[in-house]
Amino acid sequence: METKILLNESEMPREWYNVLPDLPGGPTPVLHPGTLEPIKPQDLAPLFAMGLIEQEVSSERWIKIPEEVLDIYTMWRPSPLVRAHRLEKALGTPAKIYYKWEGVSPAGSHKPNTAIAQAYYNKKEGIKRLATETGAGQWGSALCLAGKLIGLEVMVYMVKVSYDQKPYRRMMMEAWGGKVVPSPSNLTEPGKGILAQDPNSLGSLGIAISEAVFDAATRDDTHYSLGSVLNHVLLHQTIIGLEAKKQMAKVGDYPDVVIGCCGGGSNFGGIVLPFIYDKINGKAVRGVAVEPTACPSLTKGAYAFDYGDTAKIAPVAMMYTLGCEFVPAGIHAGGLRYHGDSPIISQLVNQKLVEAVAYRQKEVFEAAILFAQTEGHLIAPESAHAVKAVIDEAKKAKEEGKQRVILFNLSGHGHFDLGAYDLYLHGQLEDYEHPEAAIREALKKLPKVKM
Amino acid sequence: METKILLNESEMPREWYNVLPDLPGGPTPVLHPGTLEPIKPQDLAPLFAMGLIEQEVSSERWIKIPEEVLDIYTMWRPSPLVRAHRLEKALGTPAKIYYKWEGVSPAGSHKPNTAIAQAYYNKKEGIKRLATETGAGQWGSALCLAGKLIGLEVMVYMVKVSYDQKPYRRMMMEAWGGKVVPSPSNLTEPGKGILAQDPNSLGSLGIAISEAVFDAATRDDTHYSLGSVLNHVLLHQTIIGLEAKKQMAKVGDYPDVVIGCCGGGSNFGGIVLPFIYDKINGKAVRGVAVEPTACPSLTKGAYAFDYGDTAKIAPVAMMYTLGCEFVPAGIHAGGLRYHGDSPIISQLVNQKLVEAVAYRQKEVFEAAILFAQTEGHLIAPESAHAVKAVIDEAKKAKEEGKQRVILFNLSGHGHFDLGAYDLYLHGQLEDYEHPEAAIREALKKLPKVKM
Repeated sequence: METKILLNESEMPREWYNVLPDLPGGPTPVLHPGTLEPIKPQDLAPLFAMGLIEQEVSSERWIKIPEEVLDIYTMWRPSPLVRAHRLEKALGTPAKIYYKWEGVSPAGSHKPNTAIAQAYYNKKEGIKRLATETGAGQWGSALCLAGKLIGLEVMVYMVKVSYDQKPYRRMMMEAWGGKVVPSPSNLTEPGKGILAQDPNSLGSLGIAISEAVFDAATRDDTHYSLGSVLNHVLLHQTIIGLEAKKQMAKVGDYPDVVIGCCGGGSNFGGIVLPFIYDKINGKAVRGVAVEPTACPSLTKGAYAFDYGDTAKIAPVAMMYTLGCEFVPAGIHAGGLRYHGDSPIISQLVNQKLVEAVAYRQKEVFEAAILFAQTEGHLIAPESAHAVKAVIDEAKKAKEEGKQRVILFNLSGHGHFDLGAYDLYLHGQLEDYEHPEAAIREALKKLPKVKM
Repeated sequence: METKILLNESEMPREWYNVLPDLPGGPTPVLHPGTLEPIKPQDLAPLFAMGLIEQEVSSERWIKIPEEVLDIYTMWRPSPLVRAHRLEKALGTPAKIYYKWEGVSPAGSHKPNTAIAQAYYNKKEGIKRLATETGAGQWGSALCLAGKLIGLEVMVYMVKVSYDQKPYRRMMMEAWGGKVVPSPSNLTEPGKGILAQDPNSLGSLGIAISEAVFDAATRDDTHYSLGSVLNHVLLHQTIIGLEAKKQMAKVGDYPDVVIGCCGGGSNFGGIVLPFIYDKINGKAVRGVAVEPTACPSLTKGAYAFDYGDTAKIAPVAMMYTLGCEFVPAGIHAGGLRYHGDSPIISQLVNQKLVEAVAYRQKEVFEAAILFAQTEGHLIAPESAHAVKAVIDEAKKAKEEGKQRVILFNLSGHGHFDLGAYDLYLHGQLEDYEHPEAAIREALKKLPKVKM
């Protein structure tokens, strides 16, 4: 029995799956942050390529992947589907565990799947330069790689505290030719404003978004690029689930449950949406989104219209949210610290087509260590949330004495997160559970939308 | 045309290739460091498993890979063979460039190919614990992974300056359950001796070897493990070249030249030896070993008997050497800083069956950046030496207007070497070329052996 189920490049899916036409009730509207009225494509044109704006609202179920994007995907795709024999054995579970290994991309995560596509559509429309924000640097590095391969300049506003504390991702971005500045910077009006108030500001993702959006909005040659949350981002990531489905078919398996960690929703959406298509068409398959108790948008948030960013300049969307001013504790899974969630995933959770669970930081790292010591890979703290849920599903299968097929997305390696492993191994990692009262308070500030 | 040429697990080679019976004139003897007389298997028994000692001197051309080792190999093997289309295009070369991508292993390099095998034979013979040394941590982390998967404790003596300056590799080893101490330590007599003289000693690979050997020699449950140089290590690594040969056959190609960086010789030997077998049997194929000008054993050293370590307690072997007291400059390719070389590779170079070239540090990083910006991966400084030689071969093919097929071993990723990239990008990297006079002086101290 093989450990890795591989696809040849000729077997790689040629189309992304767009869930929008299959969402029961249709997708929820997105609102202009100024007027709180439904946003129009032309409102988004200063920031995004028209090809991406069209995908954001497309009613086509299958969208052709451009040849140039497919060609770059072959640098690491199709990614391996791996049977976690050793983890199964360690757990003594009758469950079969499969993981889709996205850490093989040069940037080390699933993020290039959309970065390449976004760079492609922008290049095609004559754009010369992309601006984006990054926290720990996972997304920024994927976009710098994409820019270099497609032929676009990339400008990254990196949250200052990460810029100072996590220099490796910055170096990676620069090695791919990206320009990286600590945010707040004196290159944009929002940055200057913050620095005038506090010259020693450590920055935040909210400020960095404002800087990148300002940069793109004020330069004709530049667009803005976002690594999660949006519909077109999840669309590009469906290549993960589409490949996984083909790979599982090769060994005659189909998952009972599909699991992914969920911050903005791009890696979870990427693996789960092609199976949600089956579920909507009557197939018995569960989807489980995993989030941290420190930022429990799906499990403790409200399903409501809210701003996409702290500064309230990004569009307003219907989603599970903790309020756009919510500041989660400084957990190491930086990619899961978003106050809201993808509108698509939120809608699926609200319609009970997808489940959500939350875990504390220490049990997540305990799962990561078990994974490292059985399956070898040292994985990202974000991905470790999925592993924790997988272990719980596998244990349940053992208790119930049931064969069960579990599929999860191993979204990235943790080579730049070893400091967090070290803290865990030396008993210095803390758990965080956001107080319910504080969440209730934050939710009182949601925008009042009349629909 | 596909970018990646994959093998299924069922196509993975089942035997390693042992070059010893094919070496013209037979292998050179190895001497006892005390007597300078040929060493006997029983002299090595306190340090190595008998299964490995047998492989060290075996006259069998094909050696069966144990099932348990094959099973663990499938976690990442067969590794991909990748056609470097984008690098070819950037160089405008008519040459076809293929690379074997060993960075997909959980430890991020080719090192686990032998670590797994060494752990297996030791476990089989009742050993409970392995001791080893590590510099920057590449080898130590591979052995910790192997120990955890096979079920052996691993004790790593890590050169103190690396232990302090490069904590990530230490954390990686600990995440896999390894015990890591800075060397010199107060756990061994050699360590205590050094600390008594200099409590602030930064350590060296020579001292760390002495500590690991002492540890193994003084404990019945413990053996010593070495990550390069020895015949059995190169044997285990031949899986790389054997896979590559099958993969190239799949696309109807055969290399005109096979290239690898060369420190102790394990990754170069791993890819080149199966092709040397063909060469000895009349096939036209070149092998090129690439080393740094800062440590030019093959290009500037003497072909002579010399000690394997600085402290002169390791066996004496016939090899290209700069003298066992040679201290190379602190280049970032730490894995290429060995004073000697594998006796097998040395013999092949001496017999003109393999060529050797040396490059300076800056041109090597220039090559690494070109590779990152075309093929995506940020590679280890060691592997970048091979890339520099590949680029030169491809340029020569362009000048000569010749189709040429180039194969090289991309032995590992550079995720923990980004600091060196950063120095290069900011113009702060230095070149080192060891002075010829200093080399001549060092070579005067070679042991006097009468054979």
